[in-house]
Amino acid sequence: MRYDIAIIGTGPAGVSAAITAKIRNKNIILFGSKALSDKMIKAHRILNYPGLPDIPGDELAEHMREHLKSLDIEVTEKQVSMVYAMGSYFGIQAGGEMFEASSCILAGGVSMDTTIPGEDNYLGRGVSYCTTCDGQFYKDKSAIVVGYNEESIADAEFLSELCSKVYFIPSGKLYGKAEMLKGLFAESNENANIVLINEKPLEISGGLKADTLKTDCGEHKADGIFVIRDAVAPDKLIPGLKTDGRHAVVDLQMKTNIEGLFVCGDAAGEPYQYIKAAGQGNTAAISAVRYIDSMQH
Amino acid sequence: MRYDIAIIGTGPAGVSAAITAKIRNKNIILFGSKALSDKMIKAHRILNYPGLPDIPGDELAEHMREHLKSLDIEVTEKQVSMVYAMGSYFGIQAGGEMFEASSCILAGGVSMDTTIPGEDNYLGRGVSYCTTCDGQFYKDKSAIVVGYNEESIADAEFLSELCSKVYFIPSGKLYGKAEMLKGLFAESNENANIVLINEKPLEISGGLKADTLKTDCGEHKADGIFVIRDAVAPDKLIPGLKTDGRHAVVDLQMKTNIEGLFVCGDAAGEPYQYIKAAGQGNTAAISAVRYIDSMQH
Repeated sequence: MRYDIAIIGTGPAGVSAAITAKIRNKNIILFGSKALSDKMIKAHRILNYPGLPDIPGDELAEHMREHLKSLDIEVTEKQVSMVYAMGSYFGIQAGGEMFEASSCILAGGVSMDTTIPGEDNYLGRGVSYCTTCDGQFYKDKSAIVVGYNEESIADAEFLSELCSKVYFIPSGKLYGKAEMLKGLFAESNENANIVLINEKPLEISGGLKADTLKTDCGEHKADGIFVIRDAVAPDKLIPGLKTDGRHAVVDLQMKTNIEGLFVCGDAAGEPYQYIKAAGQGNTAAISAVRYIDSMQH
Repeated sequence: MRYDIAIIGTGPAGVSAAITAKIRNKNIILFGSKALSDKMIKAHRILNYPGLPDIPGDELAEHMREHLKSLDIEVTEKQVSMVYAMGSYFGIQAGGEMFEASSCILAGGVSMDTTIPGEDNYLGRGVSYCTTCDGQFYKDKSAIVVGYNEESIADAEFLSELCSKVYFIPSGKLYGKAEMLKGLFAESNENANIVLINEKPLEISGGLKADTLKTDCGEHKADGIFVIRDAVAPDKLIPGLKTDGRHAVVDLQMKTNIEGLFVCGDAAGEPYQYIKAAGQGNTAAISAVRYIDSMQH
């Protein structure tokens, strides 16, 4: 089965794209979280989403969930690990499965954390962004998880069920919170094989495959290294996508250098604002609809 | 008094720009209608404004009016007839007065009606877009009103109080509705000097000043010709603004070729969608805030 439009991300950009694509009668698949956006849910109050004055982030998310529900739009809770532009369609690898869509809208947000030196180089060769996709390769082996967000805790727990040993390195906003996290992990006996390391990741190295994480305090060896952030850089997700720094290069219609691929929201550049993201999601959907309609003529 | 930001237009783009500029603590003036947007109010149902599913246009407008009210944002009900880029500030001519602002956001929508041949040429020389601004020049004289929207009826009535004779030519969506409009005007005795003409405007001509409107049925002479549409082409409002067809040329930050001037919403291009306009209004406001802050350093 080939979808008309695959939409990656359930922040305001992805939600808006899904809504507009759906009311234009397109067959869509929306990848993301049923909760929609962690960032949105945690926003204390959003003051400038016109029409919904002074709204707590979790309420805005609830409004958007209701909107999706009213249009029978389901969220597919699988992490997209790679998008392949095949010419006339896109292959989307998500949660170990492959999906096909005629066009693709990337609304995956932006990561504010800088990549670790060596990370780019070893991506796919010992470095992975997705435990669901690649965890199985490290059964009874050891893995390092460099975790930048709260989801990374669940990732470490999941790996601990497969791997002989998991080294968890809280980074970014989690940096230095090892003690707090220790309490979290200790609740379950299964997590006895998780080792918390309160160090700063400095470099990923290895031979043909990455096997070493250098930190400010020393070195750690493992069979695989997982780096878990809120968002993956757009050009890492979609090889060949033209970027400028951490953003995809888009025009006013949210078109990229890859035909049929549209990027919107934070991934398409500043300002990082809910209403801007929602607006761009709408534009991306309309561009995708036009692209599909033009293919059929 | 010089405002930080003058915002022209009270559709979703202008409203969104005003909200974001205000919460960024800028001193703003918002020109438009207290009802906000005629187009929005008349929209039967809006299906794709994320967070407000399946909302009638008048309800969305009500939500936006409440949002403006909650932030103490007033609408200045004066029609902007011209914006002059003075280098370090903008001069905004509105309702016969001149306002000053350090930066300017144009969110005036787009006109779907094509200009009448000769209109561009005679603009400011017998052709005007604003009865409030220029009506006084035609006291006890005759005027033609080519009216493309319902507001133009009020314009014709206003002119009938000043002018000896007013020829009203319903055009665009009003074309052919002279009979219906006749009933409207006849209610008041003061309008006895309004003549309704059910003809199609073809060309504006004259000598140094426009004095003739050619139609599909003949010619009409008058001292002045008022052309009243929902939106004025951006480059007619702001001399020197670079346009592409009926849209201003903008980048992703809503910047134009004129420093300190930002354009958003329908005036900045397709798609003509409420949520897209609101998103661009936000971006324009943030760009204006950055522009002002950079001026002060």
